[in-house]
Amino acid sequence: MESISIGLLGLGTVGAGVVKIVENHQDKLSHQIGCPVTVKKALVQDLEKDRGLDIENSILTLNPEEVLFDPEIDIVVEVMGGIEATKEHLLHALHEGKHVVTANKDLMALHGPELLRAASENGCDLFYEASVAGGIPILRSLVDGLASDRITKMMGIVNGTTNFILTKMTKEGRTFDDVLKEAQDLGYAESDPTADVGGLDAARKMAILSTLGFSMNVDLADVKVKGITEVTGDDIQYAEQFGYTMKLIGYAHREGEKVEVSVEPTLLQNEHPLASVHDEYNAVYVYGEAVGETMFYGPGAGSLPTATAVVSDMVGIMKNMRLGVNGKSAVNPQFPKKLKEPDEIHSKYFLRLHVRDEVGVLAKLTSIFSNHGVSFEKILQNPLDSDEFAEIVLVTHKASLEHYEDILMELKDYEAVHSIESSYRVEGGEKG
Amino acid sequence: MESISIGLLGLGTVGAGVVKIVENHQDKLSHQIGCPVTVKKALVQDLEKDRGLDIENSILTLNPEEVLFDPEIDIVVEVMGGIEATKEHLLHALHEGKHVVTANKDLMALHGPELLRAASENGCDLFYEASVAGGIPILRSLVDGLASDRITKMMGIVNGTTNFILTKMTKEGRTFDDVLKEAQDLGYAESDPTADVGGLDAARKMAILSTLGFSMNVDLADVKVKGITEVTGDDIQYAEQFGYTMKLIGYAHREGEKVEVSVEPTLLQNEHPLASVHDEYNAVYVYGEAVGETMFYGPGAGSLPTATAVVSDMVGIMKNMRLGVNGKSAVNPQFPKKLKEPDEIHSKYFLRLHVRDEVGVLAKLTSIFSNHGVSFEKILQNPLDSDEFAEIVLVTHKASLEHYEDILMELKDYEAVHSIESSYRVEGGEKG
Repeated sequence: MESISIGLLGLGTVGAGVVKIVENHQDKLSHQIGCPVTVKKALVQDLEKDRGLDIENSILTLNPEEVLFDPEIDIVVEVMGGIEATKEHLLHALHEGKHVVTANKDLMALHGPELLRAASENGCDLFYEASVAGGIPILRSLVDGLASDRITKMMGIVNGTTNFILTKMTKEGRTFDDVLKEAQDLGYAESDPTADVGGLDAARKMAILSTLGFSMNVDLADVKVKGITEVTGDDIQYAEQFGYTMKLIGYAHREGEKVEVSVEPTLLQNEHPLASVHDEYNAVYVYGEAVGETMFYGPGAGSLPTATAVVSDMVGIMKNMRLGVNGKSAVNPQFPKKLKEPDEIHSKYFLRLHVRDEVGVLAKLTSIFSNHGVSFEKILQNPLDSDEFAEIVLVTHKASLEHYEDILMELKDYEAVHSIESSYRVEGGEKG
Repeated sequence: MESISIGLLGLGTVGAGVVKIVENHQDKLSHQIGCPVTVKKALVQDLEKDRGLDIENSILTLNPEEVLFDPEIDIVVEVMGGIEATKEHLLHALHEGKHVVTANKDLMALHGPELLRAASENGCDLFYEASVAGGIPILRSLVDGLASDRITKMMGIVNGTTNFILTKMTKEGRTFDDVLKEAQDLGYAESDPTADVGGLDAARKMAILSTLGFSMNVDLADVKVKGITEVTGDDIQYAEQFGYTMKLIGYAHREGEKVEVSVEPTLLQNEHPLASVHDEYNAVYVYGEAVGETMFYGPGAGSLPTATAVVSDMVGIMKNMRLGVNGKSAVNPQFPKKLKEPDEIHSKYFLRLHVRDEVGVLAKLTSIFSNHGVSFEKILQNPLDSDEFAEIVLVTHKASLEHYEDILMELKDYEAVHSIESSYRVEGGEKG
């Protein structure tokens, strides 16, 4: 093999990062794989745009077929984004016998199994490390590093935008809207931030993580999602007072044969390793029955960090090419998917209520909880500005989601409850 | 391949963990490698000892040759410890064409290159993930996950015993001797704790990490080592007052073509990701030019966590066996070793002195520093119980080690300096 040729689909920030790394680290790459690597073609939308790259114009093309059907291209690197059309491109590439690296979490969360099957059928590798937590080699660690263990829990801070926003809200006492604007100005948040702040982006990554970590096809639709748009400064202050940190947590838990996967704002005990993951950083906490607690921390996005993961996947494929063992690394899921029912999901919950400040209200509230077998770990009552109402903040002991939802229904029906201001899951006290 | 047979050298805590994992996770292992795995022989020192394992007596042997020369054994797993005799065993195994997994950091730090060469010459795999930071898949991440990046810095909390001791000293205000005794009672420290508290254990791991991360043969003798035996409660309190956390840090830094590797008690800025790694946990912080900051956190020791790493290495070898590509994964160092001289090592330093409480002393001290071009970031003077002396605590701005050592010499010669109580490196403010 005299050299290995790469074709890029997309040449935005991540694509440009890939080109830079391949140029700057040519020595290291050659040393590892034994031959040079060249970028042969790159699909772009605009031939004239200045990308700050030292790249020949003849490499750029507006026509995807010049990448997908070029017989000299060995590896197609997809960093263009998009779902349906992109999937078709990758299926074409795989049918042409080209290996694929993708950074596309949207695509892998929705069509991962189909693409992986196509790769396997064509004797090709399909690697997607960059799709989850950019610069952190977490997929590799789940598959190889913890190969022999049974993973029972994964908790992830897998969206940098929301972590940046919650960190700033916590440390600087600012509002969601205010910090979102700063994040947009800094380029940490998209001009349309819906997928980030609504939790969808994190949910896609949790579907990919759970599928690998639990060896079970977890679909995006299986992930329960709640974003951070309704998190208030009051919630964050009470969280601090109680010894918790507010984080958007992707939570994947296996008990016996059943799993639950969710993304939701969560009060995390301050002692939990994820509680000190700040700003735009990502981290994935993994609990394995044998290994115990591990955590993988790093940048979740950005041009060069994400490109690092893409190039590492390229190196994996190129090593396999030299050994002649491509298309053999995908392991099919070992288990059928079984999702937990609400009576099988257990957690502590944080609840903030406004109630009439009258005799007997607290007693009635307490009885609503105790009738469902749920008791309090902490409870706090504060007067509100109006004399008429008081604020009650409580954390339950562990309860089933089914019981907790029944309690919420009864509270809504109880006329002394003016409003349920907020309700969050509380995690971090248990390891496994 | 109908089944893969393992031979164990040693059946202590880690060996027993390997046997348990192979038994309990037979399904998962078979699913990944496509055939069952059996432990065929285990070298022990005592045939009668109760190990709490469901293992047939015929598997145990007192004779290493029954493991090393059994033609049916595919993989030799070395968890017996020791250096010279163990090296000979592994060389025999490799010459017999057996793949090797070892958890032996002492051995790999001293004889890693020789053993890896023997493996390569015999077409065998030699994996040693468990030798550094037990349950954390850090070697794999350095080699594969960050394959395309140029790593410039690694900082590690890679000794659980010392991290446990420093955590307890910090949080509970106890003395070194007091906490060491507790650590021994809990089994976190050996009855002879010298290798741990003296820093040698961490130095071995840093030699292995630097060799891989910098692609350069770093020997144990290249690692500058200072242990934690002289760390006092006063040092820890001043550290806290200044916003630092005292940790035993393995520090490996590359600038240009030159590296420095050390293990020493270090004051780490509280914001640094390693500063919140507590108790017996380990973590390795890795800075890559492209990826930026990453950190890998988990248990550094223990029967099952270490066994997890061993079995993951076994899985890697078994996959290679099925693909017929063993003996090809070792990458020879890319660079010749070049160590930094003292004038090329730069750091901030913390210094605590007892000086005569007289007019002019502080001015003279200041001039000793400034004559070497070193200025203070922080300085604090406190009276001591005796009227005669005062305590001065300072943190320098960045200085070369050469200048700093010259300053220490001059301070020792200055008659107003009663004693240099302590001196530590200060790190964590810079990323790269």
